[in-house]
Parts: sequence; C-alpha cells; structure tokens
Amino acid sequence: MEQDTTVPGSIRPGGRTARVRDAVLRAAGDLLTERGYAHLDLAEVAARAEVGKTTVYRRWRTPAGLVADLLVEMAETSLPHSDTGSLRGDLDANAHLVAGTLTDPRQGRLFRALLAAATTDDTAATALHAFYDTRLIEWSPCIEIAITRGELPPGTDPRAVLSAVSAPLYYRLLTASSPIDDTAVTAAVEAATLAAQAGVFTTAATQPAN
Amino acid sequence: MEQDTTVPGSIRPGGRTARVRDAVLRAAGDLLTERGYAHLDLAEVAARAEVGKTTVYRRWRTPAGLVADLLVEMAETSLPHSDTGSLRGDLDANAHLVAGTLTDPRQGRLFRALLAAATTDDTAATALHAFYDTRLIEWSPCIEIAITRGELPPGTDPRAVLSAVSAPLYYRLLTASSPIDDTAVTAAVEAATLAAQAGVFTTAATQPAN
Repeated sequence: MEQDTTVPGSIRPGGRTARVRDAVLRAAGDLLTERGYAHLDLAEVAARAEVGKTTVYRRWRTPAGLVADLLVEMAETSLPHSDTGSLRGDLDANAHLVAGTLTDPRQGRLFRALLAAATTDDTAATALHAFYDTRLIEWSPCIEIAITRGELPPGTDPRAVLSAVSAPLYYRLLTASSPIDDTAVTAAVEAATLAAQAGVFTTAATQPAN
Repeated sequence: MEQDTTVPGSIRPGGRTARVRDAVLRAAGDLLTERGYAHLDLAEVAARAEVGKTTVYRRWRTPAGLVADLLVEMAETSLPHSDTGSLRGDLDANAHLVAGTLTDPRQGRLFRALLAAATTDDTAATALHAFYDTRLIEWSPCIEIAITRGELPPGTDPRAVLSAVSAPLYYRLLTASSPIDDTAVTAAVEAATLAAQAGVFTTAATQPAN
C-alpha cells in the first residue's frame, strides 16, 4: 500500500500520491493515443505530467507497468451496468457504450494502443484481461435478472452473452471490415439475444463439448 | 512489376526474385512470432534470410512494408472455402480454420503481432484489411449457395455472416475472456447461423438503421 499524505481536514481527497498518479496516467493515455504503445517513453510521460523522472521509473518501472495501471484506473472509473427493465434495453445500452468507446477519436485510439500492448507484453496482457473481467462482472447482473424475468433460459452464462455483444464491434475495430455504426450495434444485440434465448450460451449446452 | 529471372525450361518456377521474397517473408514472420512488431528490424530480417541488407531496405523500406507484403503472401496462399453441401458444415469448417490458426503456437503469435502492427501503422492496417477482404470474398460463395438452397433468407450479407463466426474467436484472442476451444467454435457457428436464419444479416433488415 502506498502511504497517503492526506491529513484529517484536508480539502484534497487524494493527496499527493493520488495527484501524481492522475497526472502520470493522463500523460500516459495522451501519449498512447497520439503515438501508440511502441513509442511510449517513461521520461516523456514524466515530463508531460510535470513529475520527476525518478518517481515514474520507481513506481511504474516500464511502459507495460504504465499500461497496466492505466487499465486498473479505467476499470475503477468505468460506468456501472444499466438497469432498463428488459434484456434488450440493457444489451442495447451495453453495445452503445462499447461502440461509443471504440468510435470515440481519443478512446478508440487508446484502446487500439492497449490491445497492441497486450499482444506484445505479458504484464499488459494480464492487465487487459483483468479489465475485461471487471467489466464482465459489473454487467453480469443484467443477464442474471433477465433469467429471473424469464427472458433467458436458466443456466445462461452472463459472460458469454456479454462477450457475444462486444465481439462483433471489436472485430470491426480490428479488421475494419465494416463501420461500427448503429446497424452494427443493432445486429450485435439481436444476434446475441437470439443465440442466448435459443440456449447457445447455457452452461448445460456448452459443457459436453469441453 | 518486378522482373522475373525465370527462363523457359528452368526447373524453378519462381526465380531469384521469388526466392528472395520467400526467404525474407519467412524470416520476417519468424521474427514477428518470436518478438512482436515493436522489435521487427530490417537488418535482422536480412541477416536471418541471408539476403543483402540493401535489397531488403530497397524493396520493403520499413517494418510496416514487410508486414504488408507478408499479409499479401498469406492471402495468396490461404486455403480455399469449403463445400460440404450444408451451411452448417461450411461454417463449421470456417470456424475450425480460424480457431486452428489463432490457437496454433506460431500462427497465433503471428496474428497477434500483425494485429498490433495494424493498430500502430496505417500501411499495416490497410494490408490487414485487404487480407480480411480477400478471405471474406473467398468464403462468400458458401453463404450465397446457402441462400439458393433455401437455408438462409434472400438478401443475407455473406460478409456479415462470416464476420459473425470469426468475431467471438478473435475477441477471445484479444481479451482472453475464455479459451478458443470446441465449445467456442460451436457457439460461434450456432449463434451466427441462428441470427442469419432470423434475418439479422439481411441487407433489407439492416439498411433502415444506417
């Protein structure tokens, strides 16, 4: 645990450690967005964040260390799951959130850089997988409540349904086979819903093939 | 056009230019697999291929140029579409081909490196998109014949169906949310088939949302 310098009565909730982390991760995100993972340099991050180089090297050690902590922060600050009252509404909200992130000029480039980092470095890969785990756990109640409402068969795997919604959107990001637009969002939600309702993602249906 | 040094009656179909390209692309693929795109070095590729450095720099210019030509070669030599007589059989064959590639130790690492290259370089991105275009065009007849057999509604977009089969497998490669196993292959094929049969991927159904 890092020692927090906040004292009782301080108006700053975070203290110096938290402020340094904010500045460094913001600078790292900016540089990743501008130039990609291959050109992420700790000294440049320190300069841009107006933080001592030694602090950055001591605390984050490598570009992959920065990427890993950035993903932890993204998971900490990412949006909670929706609760629209229907499976279709919740999956629509989820798909729009993913599509909005991937098509946003800054966020889209940032995710591409994070995916690139994960393909070349194990630390970054572990952090990326933990980020997606956090997101899947956060949104799983939407599927669980849909099962209790009778919209999906018992035993439906929440992660499989949510992954089925995201997968076509990420595939378009990678292959640029077609744009990530409303048509793509609608098709992703409809295809995932139909498959889930038909029992493609129930544990019982998938276990025998393992 | 490169001049081909093959003379009539030569037992070599490719000639020197083709042999140099083979050796260079094999070395580039090996180095990408071993160390990833960020560490791809033209001089090292030349040394490993036992080809003059000048030749490699003149013909491929940059790491992205090498990646682009490697993707052209992969598209040229990739497997033809199957013709099993049923939509389900053809999609199964397609999904097993994709899953086999992504889980093969060498090919899986190579694809990760190629995806990373495409996220950081426009030349590599264009080449990657052209590769997926070639693959989608190659396999489209499986969907077109399924329409004529009455297995899918008229107006079904072949690219959308094929992308729906591949997407969950690539998503697992990226997020490591779950393994790329037989269960994943079966679920990908079943989900894509159900959605296609329900008209989710017909041009008529998708146009209004544009």
